[in-house]
Amino acid sequence: MTRRIHVIGIGAGDPDYVTVQAVDALNDVDVFFASDKGSNKGGVEDDLVLFRRDICQRFIREPGYRFVELPDPLRASTGDYRQRVADWHEARADLWAQALLDELADDGVGAFLAWGDPSLYDSTLRILDRVAQRLDVTYDVIPGITAIQALTARHRIPLNDVGEPVLITTGRRLREVGLSGAAVVMLDGDCAFLGCPPETRIWWGAYLGTADEILVDGTVGEMGERIATVRADARERHGWIMDTYLLRP
Amino acid sequence: MTRRIHVIGIGAGDPDYVTVQAVDALNDVDVFFASDKGSNKGGVEDDLVLFRRDICQRFIREPGYRFVELPDPLRASTGDYRQRVADWHEARADLWAQALLDELADDGVGAFLAWGDPSLYDSTLRILDRVAQRLDVTYDVIPGITAIQALTARHRIPLNDVGEPVLITTGRRLREVGLSGAAVVMLDGDCAFLGCPPETRIWWGAYLGTADEILVDGTVGEMGERIATVRADARERHGWIMDTYLLRP
Ligand SMILES: C[S@@+](CC[C@H](N)C(=O)[O-])C[C@H]1O[C@@H](n2cnc3c(N)ncnc32)[C@H](O)[C@@H]1O
Ligand SMILES: C[S@@+](CC[C@H](N)C(=O)[O-])C[C@H]1O[C@@H](n2cnc3c(N)ncnc32)[C@H](O)[C@@H]1O
Repeated sequence: MTRRIHVIGIGAGDPDYVTVQAVDALNDVDVFFASDKGSNKGGVEDDLVLFRRDICQRFIREPGYRFVELPDPLRASTGDYRQRVADWHEARADLWAQALLDELADDGVGAFLAWGDPSLYDSTLRILDRVAQRLDVTYDVIPGITAIQALTARHRIPLNDVGEPVLITTGRRLREVGLSGAAVVMLDGDCAFLGCPPETRIWWGAYLGTADEILVDGTVGEMGERIATVRADARERHGWIMDTYLLRP
Repeated sequence: MTRRIHVIGIGAGDPDYVTVQAVDALNDVDVFFASDKGSNKGGVEDDLVLFRRDICQRFIREPGYRFVELPDPLRASTGDYRQRVADWHEARADLWAQALLDELADDGVGAFLAWGDPSLYDSTLRILDRVAQRLDVTYDVIPGITAIQALTARHRIPLNDVGEPVLITTGRRLREVGLSGAAVVMLDGDCAFLGCPPETRIWWGAYLGTADEILVDGTVGEMGERIATVRADARERHGWIMDTYLLRP
């Protein structure tokens, strides 16, 4: 008797991004676990919770499933960054292990729904790896459409030049090291692209795959400030924003 | 009256990787265009053609569609590489434009099925961009699960370290510039990982998502030669191989 967990990528915006494999996995689940991210309170978490419930309602044929919200341990705000992240993963693993014991039958099937793909800037797999050291549980991973693919599909562009590499990076990193080749930037709260040379090409997208999607492309020199304004306005209107962009020097 | 084209990502191996959006698009199509890649003749193209036909058979509810094979122009084998690729894209665009005129009604819906995601090391979008300069046609892009996501899902690993970048690159590039951070390597015909320091971690996968999938992980020092042998054997057995790997210094 082993508890089983599916980590299901649900795509990054459009409910129709779910795969046939994800639909099958959704229909196999007794309990959906969701973590209540204290750090991101406000509109975005509420909207993402709604999105997850919509996905379940839409694709699960026999609704016998339950939702369990996992409280999120407080993150320490001082000390070494890596150590803090590790501590926080440990604290989460403790909470998750306990929740699995309490909420899932010995032979039950649980799931975590990951926005986009579970492998990309998401800590679910790191935490589950630690959970599996605490109790008898197996898990599998179901890939999902990432924000990167949503971005290139909606702009109808290739990600890479022919035979050329592309970097997946963050706003913080772009600010630290600059641009040295094609790069997709995620997790940028602060328009790091404005620091790039004006001739840099940018394909920007917010709320990709949703009814609120915004697409802008051009050069940083011509469109950078415009994107910054559009972004600030949209963020104020929605209470939150998710945006991603591709840069080419 | 405008011809419409869907460029549909069908995922990189498992038919269940197709998305709900892709299934809807498949059911909208009158004519599937497929290019007969002269450069890759042998087992792989036959198997991929079969895979595409399987996808159509499995997910299309009312089979009124046709398949049209597009001959591939010869690639010049001398001259500047970029220029040769551009010439070849032009020659293909001519052929594709003619095929759309000949085979698709004025208001018809055509499709190109892209392995994995259409944005990743795939020239369909570049060619269609040129086709759209030759005749009145519109196209949209439906994202698909890439070999990268298949790799991380099957190994059940994150793609990136917390907040860290990751490079998507090719075997040729890895050989030229070496490894300077986490990297996913595609299009490697020749085990470029063997040139990395022995302590480099590798997660390798071949025929990902299929019944023939092979997964190996470890360090390059411990597992590099083993992967090279497994790869050579599998390649001989199947007549072709598709493999991808993640490296972390
Ligand atoms: C914590 S990461 C998770 C990424 C996710 N696992 C994926 O596969 O796309 C969140 C970041 O993804 C990007 N993102 C996710 N969904 C997006 C969307 N619908 N539109 C634009 N950007 C999005 C943003 O850059 C955001 O800061
Ligand atoms: C021309 S590229 C196309 C990539 C595709 N568009 C995608 O999204 O994955 C082909 C390369 O993708 C990788 N690849 C594609 N499918 C794969 C699979 N099922 N298993 C392992 N590698 C695969 C290999 O590195 C191969 O050389």
